[in-house]
Amino acid sequence: MSDANNPVLKVGVAGLGTVGGGVVKILQNSADLLTSRTGRAMQVTAVCARNRNIDRGFSLNGLIWHDDPIDLASDPNVDVVVELIGGSDGPALVLAQAALKAGKPFVTANKALIARHGEELAGLSADHDAPLRFEAAVAGGLPIIKALSEGLSANTISRVYGILNGTCNYILSEMEETGAPFDDILSDAQKLGYAEADPTFDVDGIDAAHKLAILSSVAFGATLNMDAMFTQGIRHITPLDIRFANELGYKIKLMGITTISEAGVKQRVHPCLVSLSTAIAHVNGVNNAVVVEGDPIGQTVYQGPGAGEGPTASAVVADLCDMARGATHAILPGPQDPPTSYLSMDDHRARYYVRLTVADEPGVMAAITAALRDEALSIESLVQRSHARGEPASVVLVTHETDETKIHRSMDRIAGLDFIAAAPSFIRIENL
Amino acid sequence: MSDANNPVLKVGVAGLGTVGGGVVKILQNSADLLTSRTGRAMQVTAVCARNRNIDRGFSLNGLIWHDDPIDLASDPNVDVVVELIGGSDGPALVLAQAALKAGKPFVTANKALIARHGEELAGLSADHDAPLRFEAAVAGGLPIIKALSEGLSANTISRVYGILNGTCNYILSEMEETGAPFDDILSDAQKLGYAEADPTFDVDGIDAAHKLAILSSVAFGATLNMDAMFTQGIRHITPLDIRFANELGYKIKLMGITTISEAGVKQRVHPCLVSLSTAIAHVNGVNNAVVVEGDPIGQTVYQGPGAGEGPTASAVVADLCDMARGATHAILPGPQDPPTSYLSMDDHRARYYVRLTVADEPGVMAAITAALRDEALSIESLVQRSHARGEPASVVLVTHETDETKIHRSMDRIAGLDFIAAAPSFIRIENL
Repeated sequence: MSDANNPVLKVGVAGLGTVGGGVVKILQNSADLLTSRTGRAMQVTAVCARNRNIDRGFSLNGLIWHDDPIDLASDPNVDVVVELIGGSDGPALVLAQAALKAGKPFVTANKALIARHGEELAGLSADHDAPLRFEAAVAGGLPIIKALSEGLSANTISRVYGILNGTCNYILSEMEETGAPFDDILSDAQKLGYAEADPTFDVDGIDAAHKLAILSSVAFGATLNMDAMFTQGIRHITPLDIRFANELGYKIKLMGITTISEAGVKQRVHPCLVSLSTAIAHVNGVNNAVVVEGDPIGQTVYQGPGAGEGPTASAVVADLCDMARGATHAILPGPQDPPTSYLSMDDHRARYYVRLTVADEPGVMAAITAALRDEALSIESLVQRSHARGEPASVVLVTHETDETKIHRSMDRIAGLDFIAAAPSFIRIENL
Repeated sequence: MSDANNPVLKVGVAGLGTVGGGVVKILQNSADLLTSRTGRAMQVTAVCARNRNIDRGFSLNGLIWHDDPIDLASDPNVDVVVELIGGSDGPALVLAQAALKAGKPFVTANKALIARHGEELAGLSADHDAPLRFEAAVAGGLPIIKALSEGLSANTISRVYGILNGTCNYILSEMEETGAPFDDILSDAQKLGYAEADPTFDVDGIDAAHKLAILSSVAFGATLNMDAMFTQGIRHITPLDIRFANELGYKIKLMGITTISEAGVKQRVHPCLVSLSTAIAHVNGVNNAVVVEGDPIGQTVYQGPGAGEGPTASAVVADLCDMARGATHAILPGPQDPPTSYLSMDDHRARYYVRLTVADEPGVMAAITAALRDEALSIESLVQRSHARGEPASVVLVTHETDETKIHRSMDRIAGLDFIAAAPSFIRIENL
C-alpha cells in the first residue's frame, strides 16, 4: 500500500506507559486494517521512554530508541510525533514545540498540556503547517473533539456539558450504591487503580477543568483560559446529600459546563444536582458523557469509557489515521485570534440545594426561615427529617432561582446562627 | 478567504424540500462560520426542484436554476452535488451516477439510495476519485458515520445496534405513556407529522433496515446487502406487551442490530426487550441512539434527534465541510471487494418473551407447560395475571436461551391447543 505518492507514515512515540504501549500495539497488530481504512500505511519507527529494559509486551526490535524525547522532533525517520509523556510543562511541552517547529504533525493525549499551552501550540501549528491533534485529551476514546470540530461543523454551539472525570463519577456512583462516605470510597478507588495516590487532580475538579477548557475552545472557538474557570471538587459531598438528592428526583454528578452568550463564555466545574429524567443522570461508574447543544441540530449526547489504555489508545490512533488521510485543518484558535470574554460566577443564577445541620432545639425552623426572608431568598421546598431525639438534625431546602451572591450571603448569615451544628453546604441544581 | 489555491467550493443542491431548504439557509446564513471552520468558502451556486415558484424562506436570486437534476452533474458552476430528492431509484440514482462519473463529490441524505445502490456508487466514487458522503442517511444529525469511519478507526468493531427509526420509537414511547393501542397512536403521529400517510417504511422496519445495512457496511466493511436482512416491524406490539415487559424489568424498542463473527455478519431489525439498566432503554420519543462495541475502545453510545430539517441539514452540511477540507477517503466497500457472508435468523439464539391469550378453563397451564416440555423449551419464568372470571387470560413466559427454530415450533404447537384464544406472540430479549 505504499508507493512514491503515498509513502508510509512514520510514527515516533514518546512515552511507553500503558497508553503508549497500547498505541504501538494497535499500530503493529492492526496495520492492515488501518491501511485499508486510511489508504496509507503507518509504521512506528522510533520510540522514547525513561527505561529501555522493561517488558512491555511488544518488541522494540527495528525501532529507533531515543533517550531524549526532543530527538523525535529532529529524527528524519519520524513524520508524526505522538506525545504520551504527560505533564503540562517539561519534556511534553518542549517536544510539542520542537515537533511543530519542525513542521511535523503532533498528536497528544495530554489534556494539561493543551489546556495550559494550547494557544501557543496552535500558533506554532499554523505557522509551520503542522497539524495539532488531541482527541484523547477529552473523554477517553469518545470522538468528541472530532464531533465538535467536524461532525457538528454546521452548528452554532450554545452549551457543552458533561461528566468529564471518571474517577469522580465512580466515587459518586459508589457513594450512592454503598452509602459509604467519600474518604472510604476514595481509598477503595485508589486500591482498585481508579484513583491516583495523590487524587487532587481528579477529586478537586482540575482534570475536568482541563478538559472543559479544551471543549470551550473547540466548541466556541474561545481562547483557552484556565484562569477563567470556576472549579470545585467533590470532597464535600456526603452520602446524605446523595440520598436527599435522590428523594428530590436528582442525582449528584461532578459536571463541567461551558456556555456562550452575548456577554461571553462561562465555564465551570462543580457538583450538580441533575434530574433523574436526563440521560446524563444514568451515566455511572468510570464512564464519561458529553452533551452538545447547538443550532440547528438540537441536543446530542456522547457516552463511553473516559479513560484507560484501550479507549485512550483508540483516540490517539484515530488522530494518527486522520494524519494518514492528510487532514490539516486547525481545531484551536491561536495567539492571533482576539481573546474571549469570560464570565465569572458572580452573576450566576440557579436553583440551589442547601443542607443545614442543626441542633435539636425549638425555634430552629423559625430562625432559618426568618434569616432567609431577611436575605430575600425564596424557598421552593423544605424538608426536615425525623431524627433521634437530642441528635443534630438535617434540614434540606431547595431555593427558587436566585443569585450565587445571594446564596453565599444567606449561607454566611445562617452559619452565624447559634444552633447550626456544622457549616451549611449547598449544591447547584442544573437545568438540563 | 478564497484565492487561486483555495477557490470557493461551489455547491449544487437537488431537492428543495425542508432539508434542502435547510441546507441552503445554513450555507447562506453561516457562511463566515463555516469558512472559519474549514478554511475554504462554500457557496450554493445552482439548485433544482420540482417547482420554482414556492416561497421557501430564502431567495433564489443569483442561483442557477435547473429543471432536470442531472444537469447539476454537468454544470461547470457546480463542484459538489447534494442530492435531497429521495427515493432509492429514479432521479436520485441517475444524479448520483452522473455526478460521480463527472468526478464531482456527491453528498446525500438518502438512506434507501445508499442501502440499495451503495456498492455501485462506491465503485464509481473510486473509479472517478469523487468522494461519496451520506452522514445524514443514518441517525439524523448524529455524526455516527464519521464516528465509525474516522473516530473509531483504530477499532475492530464487533457489534453496532440502536434505535434507528424515530417514528417507531415515538409510537412505542406513546403506547407506554398512554396505554393506547398501536393504531390509535399511529393515527395521532400521522396528524402530528411524526408518521407518513403511508407508514409502511417506518412501522414495518424498512427504514431502520436501510440504516442498519449502511451501518454494517461502514462498521465492518461488509458489502451492502438488503436481502440478507431480517426485518420485522412493530404493528403486533400491544400495550399489554409493554406493561408486561416493564414489570419484568424491560422496555420494548424497535432495534437494528448488526454483529460480525467468524461465521459472518448477521443484521436484523425487530422489536426487542431491552433491560431498563441500559442507556438505550431510556431513549424516548423521536430520538435515535446508536451503540458501538469495538476493541480496544469498549462500548460507546451516541444519541440525538433522528430526523427533522435541522438535524438532517446539519449532517449534510458537515459532509460539505469535509469536502471543503479536502477529505477523499472511501467509506463503503465497492464492487471489487469480496462479498460478505451473511447469516440468517435460523441459527439465532436468544431468550424470548412469549405472551399467550388463553380461555379461562381448568388445565390450561398444565397443557401449556406440557407442550413446552415436549418441545424441550426451558422456561425461566411464567406469570399468569388475575383476570375477570370467564374472560380470556394472559399468560406471559420468559424462556431460557434457546433457538429461534425451537421457538417457532413451540409457538406452532401451542397455537394448535384448543383453549388458545389468539395467536401466540413472542418478542426477542436482547442481551445488551
